[in-house]
This record gives sequence, structure tokens and C-alpha cells, in this order.
Amino acid sequence: MVKKVVIVGGVAGGASTAARLRRLDEEADIVIYERGDHISFANCGLPYHIGGVIKDRERLLVQTPEAMEARFNISVKVKHEVKSIDKEKKEVLVKDLKNDQTFTESYDYLVLSPGAEPFKPAIEGIDSNNVFTLRNIPDTDRINDYLKSKAPKKAVVVGGGYIGIEMAENLQERGLEVSLVEMLDQVLSPLDYEMAAMVHNHLRMKGIKLYLKDGIKAVKNRNGNTNVVLESGQEIATDMVIMSIGVRPNVELAEGAELALGPTGGIKVNEYLQTSAENIYALGDAIEVNNLISGKPSLLPLAGPANKQGRITANNITHGNKEKYRATQATSIAKVFEMTVATTGNNEKLLKEDDLAYQVSYTNSNNHAGYYPGASPMFIKIIFTAQEGKLLGAQIIGHDGVDKRIDILATAVRHGLTVFDLQELELAYAPPYGSAKDPVNMAGFAAGNILKNIVEPIQYHEIDKLDDNVILLDVREDVEVQLGMIEGAIHIPVNSLRDRLDELDKNKEVVVYCAVGLRGYIACRILLQHGFNKVKNLVGGYKLYSAVEM
Amino acid sequence: MVKKVVIVGGVAGGASTAARLRRLDEEADIVIYERGDHISFANCGLPYHIGGVIKDRERLLVQTPEAMEARFNISVKVKHEVKSIDKEKKEVLVKDLKNDQTFTESYDYLVLSPGAEPFKPAIEGIDSNNVFTLRNIPDTDRINDYLKSKAPKKAVVVGGGYIGIEMAENLQERGLEVSLVEMLDQVLSPLDYEMAAMVHNHLRMKGIKLYLKDGIKAVKNRNGNTNVVLESGQEIATDMVIMSIGVRPNVELAEGAELALGPTGGIKVNEYLQTSAENIYALGDAIEVNNLISGKPSLLPLAGPANKQGRITANNITHGNKEKYRATQATSIAKVFEMTVATTGNNEKLLKEDDLAYQVSYTNSNNHAGYYPGASPMFIKIIFTAQEGKLLGAQIIGHDGVDKRIDILATAVRHGLTVFDLQELELAYAPPYGSAKDPVNMAGFAAGNILKNIVEPIQYHEIDKLDDNVILLDVREDVEVQLGMIEGAIHIPVNSLRDRLDELDKNKEVVVYCAVGLRGYIACRILLQHGFNKVKNLVGGYKLYSAVEM
Ligand SMILES: Cc1cc2nc3c(=O)[nH]c(=O)nc-3n(C[C@H](O)[C@H](O)[C@H](O)COP(=O)(O)OP(=O)(O)OC[C@H]3O[C@@H](n4cnc5c(N)ncnc54)[C@H](O)[C@@H]3O)c2cc1C
Ligand SMILES: Cc1cc2nc3c(=O)[nH]c(=O)nc-3n(C[C@H](O)[C@H](O)[C@H](O)COP(=O)(O)OP(=O)(O)OC[C@H]3O[C@@H](n4cnc5c(N)ncnc54)[C@H](O)[C@@H]3O)c2cc1C
Ligand SMILES: CC(C)(COP(=O)(O)OP(=O)(O)OC[C@H]1O[C@@H](n2cnc3c(N)ncnc32)[C@H](O)[C@@H]1OP(=O)(O)O)[C@@H](O)C(=O)NCCC(=O)NCCS
Ligand SMILES: CC(C)(COP(=O)(O)OP(=O)(O)OC[C@H]1O[C@@H](n2cnc3c(N)ncnc32)[C@H](O)[C@@H]1OP(=O)(O)O)[C@@H](O)C(=O)NCCC(=O)NCCS
Repeated sequence: MVKKVVIVGGVAGGASTAARLRRLDEEADIVIYERGDHISFANCGLPYHIGGVIKDRERLLVQTPEAMEARFNISVKVKHEVKSIDKEKKEVLVKDLKNDQTFTESYDYLVLSPGAEPFKPAIEGIDSNNVFTLRNIPDTDRINDYLKSKAPKKAVVVGGGYIGIEMAENLQERGLEVSLVEMLDQVLSPLDYEMAAMVHNHLRMKGIKLYLKDGIKAVKNRNGNTNVVLESGQEIATDMVIMSIGVRPNVELAEGAELALGPTGGIKVNEYLQTSAENIYALGDAIEVNNLISGKPSLLPLAGPANKQGRITANNITHGNKEKYRATQATSIAKVFEMTVATTGNNEKLLKEDDLAYQVSYTNSNNHAGYYPGASPMFIKIIFTAQEGKLLGAQIIGHDGVDKRIDILATAVRHGLTVFDLQELELAYAPPYGSAKDPVNMAGFAAGNILKNIVEPIQYHEIDKLDDNVILLDVREDVEVQLGMIEGAIHIPVNSLRDRLDELDKNKEVVVYCAVGLRGYIACRILLQHGFNKVKNLVGGYKLYSAVEM
Repeated sequence: MVKKVVIVGGVAGGASTAARLRRLDEEADIVIYERGDHISFANCGLPYHIGGVIKDRERLLVQTPEAMEARFNISVKVKHEVKSIDKEKKEVLVKDLKNDQTFTESYDYLVLSPGAEPFKPAIEGIDSNNVFTLRNIPDTDRINDYLKSKAPKKAVVVGGGYIGIEMAENLQERGLEVSLVEMLDQVLSPLDYEMAAMVHNHLRMKGIKLYLKDGIKAVKNRNGNTNVVLESGQEIATDMVIMSIGVRPNVELAEGAELALGPTGGIKVNEYLQTSAENIYALGDAIEVNNLISGKPSLLPLAGPANKQGRITANNITHGNKEKYRATQATSIAKVFEMTVATTGNNEKLLKEDDLAYQVSYTNSNNHAGYYPGASPMFIKIIFTAQEGKLLGAQIIGHDGVDKRIDILATAVRHGLTVFDLQELELAYAPPYGSAKDPVNMAGFAAGNILKNIVEPIQYHEIDKLDDNVILLDVREDVEVQLGMIEGAIHIPVNSLRDRLDELDKNKEVVVYCAVGLRGYIACRILLQHGFNKVKNLVGGYKLYSAVEM
């Protein structure tokens, strides 16, 4: 029997479903309805086209309806919006947006991959023609046209998520003076606060004006001038505004058909990506997925999961429900000017919600052998269960090689590896690529030492609350200390420590720190074995402590 | 009780053992004997110092005896050779090479990390002063001095392993005309032949003269001219010779003390890295390890394992034998001019020795989104068990991002992941770093299709043996075909295939190929579902087939 499959949405999830479906089933009757002008475009490349990094607009079109029909014999209808679903009749109502005509189309299987919509708060001025959101190619064209025709000098980007940051960078690349407004106390919410602090410093250094802990209240247009008014009352004069404060799953169709939604507001699907209606599958940004670590229903709109879900959906439609989509772990990455910022798994903020006992460790390692030219350091945070050391999440900030380490760690997180497994990983080493002890091994070593009670960690946020009785010991070199140290610290370089132990009171608790933690750890080991009983190492060291203080 | 630990060899394995030992045990009496001039130097950086990439010689010294003593309170004796071991008395006989005096030194624990020695065959002329090997800093100095003082124009590098290739590249970098002689039919033996063929082509393109399947018979010096004479009788005129035909483990000390050696000739150790004598541990290039995939004893001299074994040795000496060194999987990587070549796990040659039923798959993917500037393709071979798809090995040739993918695959190999697990991996995606379907996912997809009988593969080496009755079908575009196709093939571009099926005889077997396999796969799916019963896809496509033929 020839299956008729109707797909709503022709980009990441929809087009992937269609292509795999055709490969599996040459006979199926496959129709894609896409309300926009394009299918298969590179959403993720849009900010870079605006920045001029991706010069050729055509490059954004990964597939065209014509190419898709030629290769896959798929009927692709752009400018066609699916307006409603009749579950009983297995029909959808479609509107041809070119001529406003509607018609019904029957299906054996319906696939919903309608994506998500940028959230626009109902505030004054939000609909001004210099306020933009970015989701698709027409949005991009609008921004580009505005940049060309109006030559704006200043932009306010509202929202410090990945898209907001990419837009800030790319608008600056185009010569604009950019302000970034974020309601939370940090950008890039998959990072924990102290890691985000390093990003804040980098953004500021790059000339981005940061407004944290402040929301947008209105966009005021007066005499041809635009002001963004913040909750705090501050006003920022600007020529254009980019709203990137997150996306909302497109669930109107599903809601209209009374498909079940989940607690997060996304379409609810089972592990086979099937909605509450048997012949209707859903995927991509519109659905709710399980968070890999917590198991909780979550909205995690990412292109990798959408593409993979498309393949699974096609498999299940063809072969019956056999293949499961397990969970999303929210592996993400972004270029932030010269920095690369990447995360996988859950951060402390999320883990705290679940009352899970965890530990944290920071290491700072070069991307490749220090003696080979071009080495640059990356700062790695890993989070792991307090008992067996199972990895729960990782966050990395650095330059080259960050993407490699996050992917190794993402693989580790997905397969439940422990920090001891990280120690053992045999990764490729030659001087241009890594170190004999790779940064990932090193993260495992440092974390393992904490779990095995070889050293006791103390966190940056505990330092300022320390009792006056505690000795704070800076074991860095003289030159480092001259550039700043923590108030109240005593200074003994680690290499002199064995000779100068009598300067310290053995009955007191000692908190040691160095630049990032390595020498602090060595100093702790020396102290612990020379009669000091309460010794702690500041994990992340002065580098992290001072980044937060800045 | 204060432990006395004597360590033989002060570089990768020895120095790592010492450092960890001190961190664990502040009281231990730790002595390193190193017969060379330096400890803790960067062996792996030596070729790049010769090439002028690592300019500063000091950079090669990761640690000095003084720094090691200052930080770790370790007694470091360079120019001291350990001559023999008295197991019963727990003593070693040490010779101070500065004054030729010998003395005995007692130990509670002895650690052997004496490394390996470049193999020098006993042939005529091998001891000429323009024949070099490369293992340490004096070797490097000798080569550099010769380059400076004699300004040689030509070099012959004997041996196409990692060091040989690095030397060929770096000598060319210094302006020499380089010939590379290799006894086998391929360089870089961790690669399978067809993958090495791509490296051969690159080396030739870069101007390296390759002599494969030919060994060195003699180095003849006549009237100030040097000729390398090959087994084949060919002679290569040269100004200098680098011998890099592999290393032999340094086992004289162990042999002298009647410690057990393994079948490969390396020092035999148990899973705790203990030799046949209870208080003697051994590690690094000198020992025999288990191959992760085959379980067989093997010599796999690599810096990562040596460093990690050092840490394990120190742990076991301090806490008793608790930590196991599991196995080495031989993850390796090398820069070959603009190429990066990397491997992990076992190749087909090794797997064939064990009669293990496996399958092979090739994919060609961009390191990052094609629409983002600077994307470059990498060619990935994965090998997996024929039944459940468990990964056995991977080989990658490409440019940027090869190191990342080999490390993800190395992690997968170590933890027994299958090709289906690769499909699921959630890796970091943003346009500058990857693709929504990462090359590793893609490798998993293509392999999974083979295992699930969605497409039947045929290998490059089977093509020339095909029966005349078989239809060979080239589904590439016209422009591609113009640059060459396989003899006897029929040409129908994949996008026209559905319309031109009647040009093909359904009763015949059809072997399809495209550039690398993707379109061939799609064509196979079309044919299979249109009444063709025997259809195969050339994995690796024309790219691989023609690389081997070149
Ligand atoms: C600027 C930007 C940058 C991004 N960068 C990254 C990144 O670096 N990494 C990453 O992982 N993710 C990134 N994403 C997210 C990623 O693009 C999405 O996760 C992914 O596209 C989701 O796929 P989808 O199929 O669910 O939705 P989409 O790709 O958005 O496709 C949904 C389509 O459905 C259509 N549609 C909706 N309703 C209907 C209807 N009723 N009838 C017909 N058609 C309909 C829409 O017009 C839309 O074209 C980015 C997104 C944007 C906007
Ligand atoms: C040119 C070159 C490039 C390399 N590139 C790479 C690479 O890119 N990636 C990689 O993984 N590996 C590479 N390696 C291999 C790596 O360096 C070795 O695997 C690693 O150094 C082995 O450590 P080890 O402690 O066993 O031996 P070594 O580091 O060689 O140390 C052994 C030391 O023991 C000393 N010794 C021996 N016998 C005695 C004795 N009786 N008394 C006192 N001292 C003694 C020796 O003088 C030597 O200094 C390379 C090696 C070379 C030579
Ligand atoms: C373009 C698009 C339709 C691609 O769909 P696709 O055909 O499934 O994907 P690809 O072209 O990458 O091909 C993958 C297929 O080729 C196969 N393949 C790849 N290389 C192969 C090789 N060398 N040999 C054999 N098969 C190979 C894979 O196995 C896979 O097939 P399968 O799913 O049947 O197993 C879809 O991904 C898309 O619309 N992308 C753009 C939108 C988007 O993702 N936006 C968000 C990110 S910016
Ligand atoms: C230099 C050498 C002595 C290093 O030994 P090392 O002190 O063990 O190694 P590192 O300096 O990298 O430090 C690693 C230690 O710091 C710890 N560490 C690293 N960063 C840390 C941080 N931020 N916080 C706390 N601890 C940290 C690690 O846990 C590890 O300690 P552990 O082993 O006790 O767990 C040795 O590796 C060597 O000789 N190398 C050169 C020779 C060589 O390897 N050649 C072959 C390759 S070219």
C-alpha cells in the first residue's frame, strides 16, 4: 500500500524526515507544506550572513524545492500554510498563501515540524519598523535591507542567548555600536554564572555595552529617534533593535487538533516521537523532549536534535515504531568574537533544582602542546555526581580546540562515563593537536583527586565568607601577585613552601589558591602531609575568582 | 615508613611517575636516574624544532632537573646510567657518566621507564656521520648542526612511520629535497592501504619522492658523495640520511635482571604495571601492552599511554595495586603537510589476523557547515563488527577537525559503542564548528544502513574483478564524469535515474558508484525498490577507487 505522508514545515526537521523517508520508501507519496518562501535553509547561518561572513545569500539555501523534487521525488509546496488538522478524517486544511485559496489534503501519516517563533513581548513600540527578530530568510533580508538603506550606527540587542550574542558580534562586524540587554544576571544561560562572567569580560573588552539584570520595557520613537527604555528606567538611544529573548514552540496547529501538549508548552510526544494521535508524529523545536540528565520534560530547540529526530520519524513511519529518541542533553556551542563557548549536559543551576549531590572541578589547559606555536588555554568546568563521579555536565571557554573537548565530553555524558573514565581516554596526541595528557584527561585527574579526597575543593563564592581565622594562602610567583591578589592573603610561592612552613599556624584552616588550581593543589598536598589538617584548594583559582569580581 | 623509589629514565613515563608520586607522598625518597643530558623533554616536538616551527630550543625542555627539585623535592641525576639490577638485594648499579664512577643504590620500589631506541640495521655505511636517528635532544642538535654547517641539499628518510613523515616534512621545510623510502607498500602502517594511498598522493604532490616496497641495503660514501642503495638496486644520491624505521624497547636492564619479557620483546607487566619482580614496575615504550581490540600483547610506543601509566604506577606504589592499566588502542595522529591523518583502534590488516567478522564504511563530510567559509572535507573510514556494529577502529584523512572526530571515535571505541550509538551522539553544532549531522553521526548513519541491509556495500578492490555481466553504473553529474570514470561504466546521473530505469537490465547485478558513496546509496535505494534485486554501492566511491589507482 502506498503511504501518503504530509509534512508540515520544510526546514531542519521536516526536510530531513522527507529525505530519509524517500530513501526508505520509493513509493510513498510525500508532500511538504512550508508556509515560508524557502525550505531547507540554514537558520544557524543567518547571523553570519548579516555580518557579511557568509557573503553569498544563495549559500543559505541548503536545498531548494526543485532540487528536492529532482533528487527525492517529493512534492514541495512553499507558501502553503497548514491551518488545521482533522484527526478523525486524517485530513489537513491547507491555505495557498499566493492566492489565499484553501483546500484539504488527506494523509496516512502527518508529521509536524513547525519549529518555533521568536518571542515578542507585548510592549510599547515592539512593532516599529526598526525592531527586528531573526528566524528565517525574509527576516534576514529585512535586517540587511535596513542596514543598507538606513546605515544605522547603533543597535540594541535584547536577549543574551546564543542568537543574541551572535547578532551582537555580527552587527559590530558591520560597524555598529552594539548594546546588549539581558534580564538575567548573565548571558548564555547554559553556563553557570562564574563561567558567564568570563564571557561578560570578553564582550566588554570587545566593545559591547552590557546591560545585565535589566529588561526591556518599551521602544520609544520620538522625532525620528529611537530609545530603548529599560525596566530600571535607563534609556539607550539606538537606531535599531533586535529582539532575541527566546523562542516559543509553534503549537497552534497541535492545539487546534487537541493534541496533548506537555507542561513546558511544547507538543508532547512519546519516545517514538508520536503525538497523542496515532498517525501524527512531531519533532524539532515544537516538541518537548526529555532532558538527558534530569529526565524532565524540556524545551531544547537545537538543530542537531531536529535533524536526528527527522531520521527517526521516517524510520518509525516506515518500519513501525522501533526507534526511540532518548533524550536531549543540550550540547551547544557559540563563537563569541575570539572566544568559543560550549556546554553539554546540565549546569549547577539546573542540578540544584533536582537536589542532586554533585561536585565541581575546573581546569585550565592548552589546546595543544605548549611548546608548539599557537597554543591557547581553555577553561573547563565539569560537574559530576558526588559519589561515583558520573559526569553530569561540562562548560568550556577558550579558543581553538574547545569544540573538540566539548564533543568528547558530550559523548562521555551521553554514555554515563565517570571522571575516572576521562582519565583513561586515549586521545590523539601530536604537538599540533593535543597534549600527552589531553585537557579532557586533565579534567578527569583533577576531579578524581577531589572524589578520592586527595584534595578538598573550595569554591570562588565561599572565599568572601571565610572566617577571619582561616589562613588564605597565595602560592603564585611574585610577578603574578603584583598584578593583584585576594584581600587578606599571605603570599608564599609554592616552590618555597616546604622551607617556609613554620610561617603558618598548623592549628588553623588554610585555604590555598594559585592562578587556576594546579599549584594550589600541589601546595595543599604539601601542607596536608606536614601536619596541617584542614586545607582547601580554591578550584578555578584567582583567574575565576577575579573574573567574577570584575 | 619512608619509601625509597628509584626511577630509571626521566622523560615521559619516569618524570610523570615521579611528579605524581611526590604529590601523593611527601615523605618518599625519590631518585630519577637519566643517562641522557635532559629529563622531561618534548620528544614529540623534536622534528618541529628541526623544521624551525618550534624556534626556541629551550621550549623543548618541559621540566629541568632544577625545577623538578624545586617543585617536587625529587633528586634528579642526569648523565647517570643504571647498569644493572640486583632483585634480591633491591639495589641498582649506577654509573655516573661524567666521571665513569659506579655506585650502588638501594630501593624499595624500582620503576623502569627506559623507553625505546631507534632501530639501526647492521648495513654498510650505517655509522657514517651523515646518517642520523632522532630520539632525543643531542640527536636533534646533531641534525641541526649538520644542516647548518653542511647545508645539505638532499635528504633520504628511511621509514614512512609518523616520525619519518614528520622528518620528511620538516626537512623539506628547511629547503631540502626529500626522498622517502619505505619497505612496505604504504606509509603510516596504522592506516589501511587504500587510506594510505591518499597520503601517498599528497606526499607526491608536495614534492616528496616516494620509494615504496623497497628497503635500504647500504649507504655508500664515495669521494664525498653519498648514495643510498636500495634492495631493488636503485641508488639515491643524497647528502644525509635519516633512519626512522621504528624503535626497539630498551630491555637490556630488565633482561639482565631476568625480568620476564613478553612475546613481542617488550618488558612483560601485569595489569598493575608490575614486572615479574614484585617491587619493580615498568611502563612506557619499554613494555608490552594489551591491544584494546584484540587483547593481544603489542608494542605501541606512544606518549599519552606513557604519561598515564606513570600516574598509575605512582598510584599503585603509594596505595598498593589498585589501579589497572587496561589496554592501549593506539590512537595516533600526524600532520602531513596540509593534511591531518589520524587513527584509533585496529585496522583491517590487524583484524584479519584475528578472523573477526567486520564491515567497513567510508564517508566524506565537511569539518563544519558547508555554507560557513573555510569548510574542508574529511574522509572517514570506520570498521565495526558485522553483527552488532561495535566499533573496532577508525581512520580519518582531512584537514581541520580531523583531530576532533578521531577523539570522539577513540572515546567510542574505548567504551564499546556501536555505529548506532554514533548516530545518536549529540555533538556541538554552530556553523563555524560542525554540522547538524556531524561527520561522526554521518559515519554512523552510513554504517547503520549497511548493517540493516538497507544498502549492500562493495569495496574498491572488488571492482576490477567484477564479472562482465555486472552493470557498473556511474551516477555522478556530467562534469564529474568528464574528469574520469571507471572503465566500462554506464553513466546516468542520480537525478535522472527514476526516468531512465528502462535503460538498465533488471536481471543483471548493478554496482553503483558516485564520488564518495552518498548518491550511490540513493541510487541503490531507487534501483532496489524498482525491481532490481542485486544492487551494490561502491563505498568510498570514485574518490577512493581512483586514489588507489593513481
Ligand atoms: C538565527 C538562528 C541561529 C541558530 N543557530 C543554531 C545553532 O548554531 N545551533 C543549533 O543547534 N541550532 C541553532 N538554531 C536553531 C535551529 O535552527 C532549530 O533548532 C531548527 O531549525 C529546528 O528545526 P525545526 O524543523 O523544528 O524548525 P524550523 O527549522 O524552524 O522549521 C519549521 C518550519 O515550519 C514552517 N511552519 C510552521 N508552521 C507551519 C504551518 N502551519 N504550515 C506550514 N509551514 C509551517 C515554518 O515556516 C518553518 O520554516 C538557530 C536558529 C536561528 C533562528
Ligand atoms: C621524534 C619523536 C616524535 C614522537 N612523536 C610522538 C607523537 O607525536 N605522539 C606520541 O604519542 N608519541 C610520540 N613519540 C613517542 C613518545 O615520545 C614516547 O612514546 C614516549 O616518550 C615514551 O616515554 P618513555 O618514558 O617510555 O620513554 P622516553 O620518553 O624515551 O624516556 C626514556 C628515558 O630513559 C633513559 N634511559 C634508558 N635507559 C636508561 C638507563 N639504563 N639508565 C638511565 N636512563 C635510561 C633514556 O635516556 C630516555 O631519556 C615520539 C617520539 C620521538 C622520538
Ligand atoms: C538538506 C537536508 C534535506 C538533508 O537531508 P538528508 O538527505 O537526510 O541529509 P544529507 O544530505 O546530509 O545525507 C545524509 C544521508 O546520506 C547518507 N550518506 C552520507 N554519506 C554517505 C556515504 N559516503 N555513503 C553512503 N551514504 C552516505 C547518510 O547515511 C544519510 O542517509 P540516511 O539518513 O538514509 O542514513 C536537511 O538536512 C535540511 O533541510 N537541512 C537544512 C536545514 C537545517 O538543518 N537547518 C538547521 C541547521 S542550519
Ligand atoms: C612535565 C611532567 C613531569 C609533568 O608531570 P605532572 O606534574 O604529572 O603533569 P602536569 O604538570 O601536567 O600536572 C598534572 C597534575 O596537575 C593536576 N592539575 C592540573 N590542573 C589542575 C587544576 N586546575 N586544579 C587542580 N589540579 C590540577 C592534575 O590533576 C595532575 O595531578 P595528579 O596527577 O596528581 O592528579 C611530565 O609530563 C613530563 O616529563 N613531560 C615531558 C615529557 C613527555 O611527556 N614527552 C612525551 C610527549 S612530547
